[in-house]
Amino acid sequence: MSDRISGILTPNITPVDAAGRVDEERLRGYVDWLIDRGVDGLYPNGSTGEFVRFTAEERRRIVEVVVQQADGRVPILAGAAEANVKETIDACETYGAMGVRAVAIVAPFYYRLSAEGVYAYFREIADAVSVDVTLYNIPLFASPIDVGTVIRLASECPRVVGIKDSSGDLPNMMRMIAAIRPMRDDFTFLTGWDAALVPMLIVGADGGTNATSGVVPELTRAIHRSVVAGNIPEAMRLQYQLLPLFDAMISLGEFPEGFRAGARSRGWNLGPGRVPLSESQRDAVSRTQREIDALVAEVADLDESLVLPPETIEKIVQRVMRQLGSA
Amino acid sequence: MSDRISGILTPNITPVDAAGRVDEERLRGYVDWLIDRGVDGLYPNGSTGEFVRFTAEERRRIVEVVVQQADGRVPILAGAAEANVKETIDACETYGAMGVRAVAIVAPFYYRLSAEGVYAYFREIADAVSVDVTLYNIPLFASPIDVGTVIRLASECPRVVGIKDSSGDLPNMMRMIAAIRPMRDDFTFLTGWDAALVPMLIVGADGGTNATSGVVPELTRAIHRSVVAGNIPEAMRLQYQLLPLFDAMISLGEFPEGFRAGARSRGWNLGPGRVPLSESQRDAVSRTQREIDALVAEVADLDESLVLPPETIEKIVQRVMRQLGSA
Amino acid sequence: MSDRISGILTPNITPVDAAGRVDEERLRGYVDWLIDRGVDGLYPNGSTGEFVRFTAEERRRIVEVVVQQADGRVPILAGAAEANVKETIDACETYGAMGVRAVAIVAPFYYRLSAEGVYAYFREIADAVSVDVTLYNIPLFASPIDVGTVIRLASECPRVVGIKDSSGDLPNMMRMIAAIRPMRDDFTFLTGWDAALVPMLIVGADGGTNATSGVVPELTRAIHRSVVAGNIPEAMRLQYQLLPLFDAMISLGEFPEGFRAGARSRGWNLGPGRVPLSESQRDAVSRTQREIDALVAEVADLDESLVLPPETIEKIVQRVMRQLGSA
Amino acid sequence: MSDRISGILTPNITPVDAAGRVDEERLRGYVDWLIDRGVDGLYPNGSTGEFVRFTAEERRRIVEVVVQQADGRVPILAGAAEANVKETIDACETYGAMGVRAVAIVAPFYYRLSAEGVYAYFREIADAVSVDVTLYNIPLFASPIDVGTVIRLASECPRVVGIKDSSGDLPNMMRMIAAIRPMRDDFTFLTGWDAALVPMLIVGADGGTNATSGVVPELTRAIHRSVVAGNIPEAMRLQYQLLPLFDAMISLGEFPEGFRAGARSRGWNLGPGRVPLSESQRDAVSRTQREIDALVAEVADLDESLVLPPETIEKIVQRVMRQLGSA
Repeated sequence: MSDRISGILTPNITPVDAAGRVDEERLRGYVDWLIDRGVDGLYPNGSTGEFVRFTAEERRRIVEVVVQQADGRVPILAGAAEANVKETIDACETYGAMGVRAVAIVAPFYYRLSAEGVYAYFREIADAVSVDVTLYNIPLFASPIDVGTVIRLASECPRVVGIKDSSGDLPNMMRMIAAIRPMRDDFTFLTGWDAALVPMLIVGADGGTNATSGVVPELTRAIHRSVVAGNIPEAMRLQYQLLPLFDAMISLGEFPEGFRAGARSRGWNLGPGRVPLSESQRDAVSRTQREIDALVAEVADLDESLVLPPETIEKIVQRVMRQLGSA
Repeated sequence: MSDRISGILTPNITPVDAAGRVDEERLRGYVDWLIDRGVDGLYPNGSTGEFVRFTAEERRRIVEVVVQQADGRVPILAGAAEANVKETIDACETYGAMGVRAVAIVAPFYYRLSAEGVYAYFREIADAVSVDVTLYNIPLFASPIDVGTVIRLASECPRVVGIKDSSGDLPNMMRMIAAIRPMRDDFTFLTGWDAALVPMLIVGADGGTNATSGVVPELTRAIHRSVVAGNIPEAMRLQYQLLPLFDAMISLGEFPEGFRAGARSRGWNLGPGRVPLSESQRDAVSRTQREIDALVAEVADLDESLVLPPETIEKIVQRVMRQLGSA
Repeated sequence: MSDRISGILTPNITPVDAAGRVDEERLRGYVDWLIDRGVDGLYPNGSTGEFVRFTAEERRRIVEVVVQQADGRVPILAGAAEANVKETIDACETYGAMGVRAVAIVAPFYYRLSAEGVYAYFREIADAVSVDVTLYNIPLFASPIDVGTVIRLASECPRVVGIKDSSGDLPNMMRMIAAIRPMRDDFTFLTGWDAALVPMLIVGADGGTNATSGVVPELTRAIHRSVVAGNIPEAMRLQYQLLPLFDAMISLGEFPEGFRAGARSRGWNLGPGRVPLSESQRDAVSRTQREIDALVAEVADLDESLVLPPETIEKIVQRVMRQLGSA
Repeated sequence: MSDRISGILTPNITPVDAAGRVDEERLRGYVDWLIDRGVDGLYPNGSTGEFVRFTAEERRRIVEVVVQQADGRVPILAGAAEANVKETIDACETYGAMGVRAVAIVAPFYYRLSAEGVYAYFREIADAVSVDVTLYNIPLFASPIDVGTVIRLASECPRVVGIKDSSGDLPNMMRMIAAIRPMRDDFTFLTGWDAALVPMLIVGADGGTNATSGVVPELTRAIHRSVVAGNIPEAMRLQYQLLPLFDAMISLGEFPEGFRAGARSRGWNLGPGRVPLSESQRDAVSRTQREIDALVAEVADLDESLVLPPETIEKIVQRVMRQLGSA
C-alpha cells in the first residue's frame, strides 16, 4: 500500500449567512464536527460546495479557512478549477502553498470539450503545477474525462495522482483500475457516486468524496471500514440504509439544497445556498425536512453497533487488505 | 430461500446455417454443451438470440427445440414478446404448455411508451396468462420499465415473478430489491449487464442472464458460485477477467456478432447472424477473432482452479446465504 | 422536374374493430375519404399505422386493401420493414407486384446499428429488389440513418429513390439536399415532422408524410400548395394553426392514440389502437377529445378561405409579406 | 412595430494577444470592421466570446471597450451572467450604466436546474435590475429554459424583453412566438442557430445572434435583408451557402476555434483562444485553414451580387419561386 488518498473525504457544503456571505465561523465549526465524526479528509470547493456560485476570491478564502481549521488533522483536497488554464494554475499553486494534500480539477464545463481538448487542458496544467492533481470526472455537469484520457494522463503526468469519478459508471471504474494500477501504485481512485459506494469500493476504489458524508459521516465511515474489513454483508446493509436518504436529499429542490436539509437534521443550519428557489420549491423543502429528519434519525441509531475497538479493526484490515490486494 | 429462478441463465445465440435458417442440430448440440458446462438455465429468444430478427414461427420452434433438448435438466426462461398483447399472450400460453419455467417479456419497443403505457401492457398480459412472467428491462433497446412500474406490477400481479434488468443501473437494482423483497419472497432479480455481474450479485440479485455465459459458461458460473460462497475477492478477480472479454465482444460488429466470434473461439461455429455486415465490418470481425481467441484462452486456463468439490461449496453456500440473506 | 414522389402522403392509421382485428371496410372508407380530401398519396404500414403491432400477414393485407381501394387514384408508398433482410425483401417484391409506387423501409430497430450496419442493411435490400425504395429515418424509434449514409446509398443504389425523414433536423435535410440533388434529380426528400412542415418544404423538401394529414388533410394540402405557389406568409399562417393541433395529438396517450382521437373529431371512429392504455390514460383521452374536437373545428372553418380566388390571395400575400418584412 | 431588438447581432470573438490577454486594440478594430460591414448590433461576452474563460474583471472591461468603440452606432447586447444572482445583478447594473441596449443572461450552468429553479433565478434578477434583460437559452451548454418558463417570465416580468434561443428547435420557437407575441409586442425573438437562420426568421424571429456574422457579416446581413424583403428563394440560396462554412467552422477544434480560423480568412488574427489545444488539434486547425479560406472566399465573391438593383432581384425571385414551386 502506498500513501494514496483514501477513505471518505467530505465535499463540504459552504455555509452562508443571512446576507449570503460565506459564514466562516460556521464553516470552522462544521469542519471540526466532520473531523470529530471521523471523516478521512475534506474537499472544499467541490460540487456540493457550489464552487461555481462563489467568486474566485471567495473560493480562495474557503480553502484557506478549511486548511487552517483542519490544521493537519486530515488531508485537504481542494477544488481548484477556475475560468481558464492560467487562473487554474494560479489557484493550484496558491492551494499547494497553503498545504493541501492535492487539488481536484473538474474538466472544463459549459462548452463540451472533445477528448483531445480535455487531455490538452489537463496536460497543460499538470506540466505547470507543483502540487498533486486529481482529475474530477462528472459528465453530468462538465466535459467527460473518458477512460482513455485518464489512462493517457496517468501514464504521462506524474503530478496527476488520482481520479475522482462521479459518473457512477462501475465498469469504467474497473477499466481504469485495470489499466492504471499496474503502472501507478500511487494513483488514487475515488468515487463521488454515493448510491454505489460499496460496489465501487469492492471493485477497488480507494475511497469516496461523498456528499452524504457531510450529513451522516458516521455511516459513510462505517461503510468504508466495513469494506476494508472484508465485511461485505455489513457494508451492504449500511449501503441499503444510505440509499433512501441519498435519494431524498438528491431529489430535493436544486442540488445541493437537499444536503443542506440533511445538515439541518443534524443541527447544522448552513444557510440557504446560493441559488434562488421558487416559492413552490421552498415549500417542498419545508415539507420534506421532516422526512429527511426521520431518515437521518434512523441512521443515527446505527452508530453504537459500528464502534468496534480500533485494534480489532486494525487486525481485520491487515488481513483483508492482503486479500483485496490480490484481487 | 424460495424456489426463485437463480444462477446464470444463458441467453443463447440462435445458430443459423449457411442459408440463414435456424440450425436445429447445432442448437441442440450447443444446448447440451452449455448444460454440461454448468449453466443454471437457458433463455432462448433473448436479445442475444436476436429474437426480433426471426419470424413468429421460428421463435416458437426455437423454444420448442431448446425445451426438448434441455429435457428438464435446467429451467427454461423463454422470450415471449410478439407484435402485440394478443400475440404475446398466445406465445406465453404456448411456451407454458411446452413446460418453460417462465417467460420473459421485453417492454414494447420501437415506440417509446410512457410508464403508464408500460404498466398497462404488462398488466393486461399478467392478468391473462397461466405461466410465470419475468419483466425484461433493457432501456437501450426498448421502452424503459421504471422502478415504480416494477414495484407496482410486483405488488398487483402474482404472475409477475421477476425482473431481468439489463440497464446496468446498480442503485435502481437496489431500489427494486429494497421495495419488493419484503413483500414478495418469490420475486427474482436477474441482471443482464455482464460488466457489473459481481456487484449486482453482491447487492442481492439472484443471478444473471448473461451473453458471456454462452462463451465462457465456466467463468460466469465460477463468478456466481464465488459470490454465493461469500468469496468476494475471488469473484472480483474473475470479474476483472470477464471484463476485457466482454468489452471485446460487445464492441465487435453489430451485436451479437462479437458473441458469435466468442463461440467460435470455443469451437462453436453458430453461423453469421441475421443482420448483414458491411465489408469493413466483416474485415474487423476477421481481424479481431484472434484477439478474442486469446482472451477466451486466458479464461479457459482458469477452469481447473474453479472446480471445488460440490459438498464444500454446499457448506459455504449455506453459511453465506444466511449472511447475505440478512443484508 | 422529374417524376419524384411529392406532395402530402398520409401515413394512414390502421382501423381496427371491437375485436382488435383490422377493419377492412372502414379502411376502405377512410382511404376514399382521404383521397377525396386531396391527399397526394397513401402510406400504409408507417409508424402512424402501428406497423410493428400487426403480424406479417396483417401487414400484407393492409397494403393490399389500400392499393385495391386507391385503385390508381394516388400513388402508394408501402411500409415494408420485416423481421430481417430476407423477409423485408420478400415484402418489397410482394408490394411491388401489387403496384405500389415505392416501398418505405425503416432502419433496423430494437438494436441500434452503427452507420456501417445501417448501410449494409439497405445496400443488401437495394441490390435485391425490383421496386423503388425510400429510406425511412426516424432516430427516435429506430437506428439513425445518418446524412453520410443517405448520401452513400443515394450515390450507389439507383433503386433508392428517396428519404423520408422524421428526425425534424432541418440543417440535416439541407445537407442531404445539397449533396444529393445535383447527382440524383429523381431523388425525393420527404419530411415526417409535421411541426416543421413549412420550413422543411421551404428548404427544398418535395413533400411530407404527415400523421396530421390523416386528420386534417385539407390543411396539410393547403400548406403544401401555398409553399409551391410561393405564398410563404399564407403557408406560415396555416403552419401556426397546425402546430397546436399537432401538439395536442402527439402528446395524448400513447402514439398514435391522439391521432385516432383527431380522426374521431372528423367522424372517423377507427377503433382503439393496438396498445393497451391504463385507466388513467383512457380517462385522459376522453377528457381531451373535446379539446381536440375544438382544434379540429377551428381548422375546418378555414377550409372556405382556402378556395379563395387567386387574385384575392395575391393581395393578401402582398400585404402579409409587407407585415412580415417589417417584423 | 415596436423598437424590438432586431437584425443580426454579432456575438463577437474576444481577441487575445500572444500573452493570452484581452487585446483591446484589436477588439476596437474588429468592432469597427463589423459595424462597417453592416451588423445590426454587437454581443460581447456571448458563448462565441468565451465569456466563461475570462475573469469577472475582464468581462467588464470587454463590454466597456465594445460600448465605447461602438459609440452608439449600433446597440449592444451584453452577456452578463456571473457566478451567482448577486454578482449577475451587479454586472447588469454596471452594463446598464455603460449604455447597453440590454443584457443577455444565460441560464445557470454546470448544475442542471429544474424549470422551477430556472424561473426563480431569472425572476429574482428581473425584479432587481433596471436594464432590459434577454433570456439566453442554450440547452447544449446550460440549464434549458423551457417554453413554459419563457412564457411565464414574459408574462410576469416587464424587464424581460426577449429570448435569444440557440437550441435550434424550430417548433419551440413557433410555440413561444404564438404564446408571447399577442401579449408582448415589445418582446424580441432571436435565434443563435446559424444553420437554420432563414427558417427561424420565416417563422417570425426578429433576428439572430450568429457566430458566422463575425466572419461573413455581409452574408448574414444579406440573409436577414432578403427575408425582410420577402425574397425567400434568395434567402434560401444564401442559407445554402452559409451552411458548409458554418459546418466547417463549428466542427474545427474546440468551439469557437473554427470561428477564429474564419476570422483569419478575413484578415483578422484574433489570437488562439483561451482553451489549450492538443498537438493533433493544432495540426487539424492548420490543415483546415485553407478549406475555410476557400469557403469564405466563395461567400465573399457573392457580395457584388448582393447589391444588385431591385428590379433584377425581382426577376430572379419570380423565376426561382417558379422553380421552387415545381420542386
